[in-house]
Amino acid sequence: MNTTIDQSPPGSLTFRDAVVGDIPAIMALLVDDMLGQSRDVVTDPPDPAYVTALAAIGDNPHDHLIVVERDGAVVGCAQLTMLHGLSRKGMTRGLIEGVRVASSVRSGGVGAALVAHLVEMAREAGCGMVQLTTDKRRERAHAFYERLGFEATHVGMKRMLD
Amino acid sequence: MNTTIDQSPPGSLTFRDAVVGDIPAIMALLVDDMLGQSRDVVTDPPDPAYVTALAAIGDNPHDHLIVVERDGAVVGCAQLTMLHGLSRKGMTRGLIEGVRVASSVRSGGVGAALVAHLVEMAREAGCGMVQLTTDKRRERAHAFYERLGFEATHVGMKRMLD
Repeated sequence: MNTTIDQSPPGSLTFRDAVVGDIPAIMALLVDDMLGQSRDVVTDPPDPAYVTALAAIGDNPHDHLIVVERDGAVVGCAQLTMLHGLSRKGMTRGLIEGVRVASSVRSGGVGAALVAHLVEMAREAGCGMVQLTTDKRRERAHAFYERLGFEATHVGMKRMLD
Repeated sequence: MNTTIDQSPPGSLTFRDAVVGDIPAIMALLVDDMLGQSRDVVTDPPDPAYVTALAAIGDNPHDHLIVVERDGAVVGCAQLTMLHGLSRKGMTRGLIEGVRVASSVRSGGVGAALVAHLVEMAREAGCGMVQLTTDKRRERAHAFYERLGFEATHVGMKRMLD
């Protein structure tokens, strides 16, 4: 799905699947984040691990890494993965991960438009629900998602593997 | 992966990918749950939606619905989905969903063995992390996962789609 919406704010935005050439811009978004700064490193050319990961996403028809452009520049990204499952009568769910908006355009409606785009993609794919997790420290993000109709119903847990 | 472990408790357990013939047993596990009772309905034959969902899981090489058997009976199930992503240097993560253990054998070590099996599958698939969400109301589950090395770092949010 490659769509352009025109509204003010946030201006004319284009959403499309990420390609290899977007990796530097995506990496810049990852490090332009209070929690991601220590987890990712921008190099030129990018670490091959990023290219491999993007290829794996592209190979999965249920997985989409979306970038949002404004005036030809990537100003945000997010991932949507369709999850099949038996519960709730075989309901498919859309998992939203890694919503990132450039700090220079934050609070301008880009994030809301990006999430709305993912929700519409999930709906078109037959999902009955969208879900996400957000770090407990991202208090502004919690309020942001609540404004978009999300409910904080779950505890998100993780375990690093050696 | 089809493995049998022998320990006491929980006795000899076999883990394998679910097949269509397991659907009635899995549905029984779904309704044998404080929150799932109102969400799923056991019928014979099962609603085709469950068969379709299991086929979609089977078609995805990154997705596994696992059942655990003891003495030839299915006593638990859980799903593991490998998620590719760019962040954390292209780290693959294992998403654990829908861990269910029959109430008749609960607190006997089956759940811990099941999660340990999924963690090992994730590790073998190259995951650097496993993650899950659990309903805020499942207080015993939170303590269970913390004993297994999970940290409650995130808020899990969802939005139902019309």
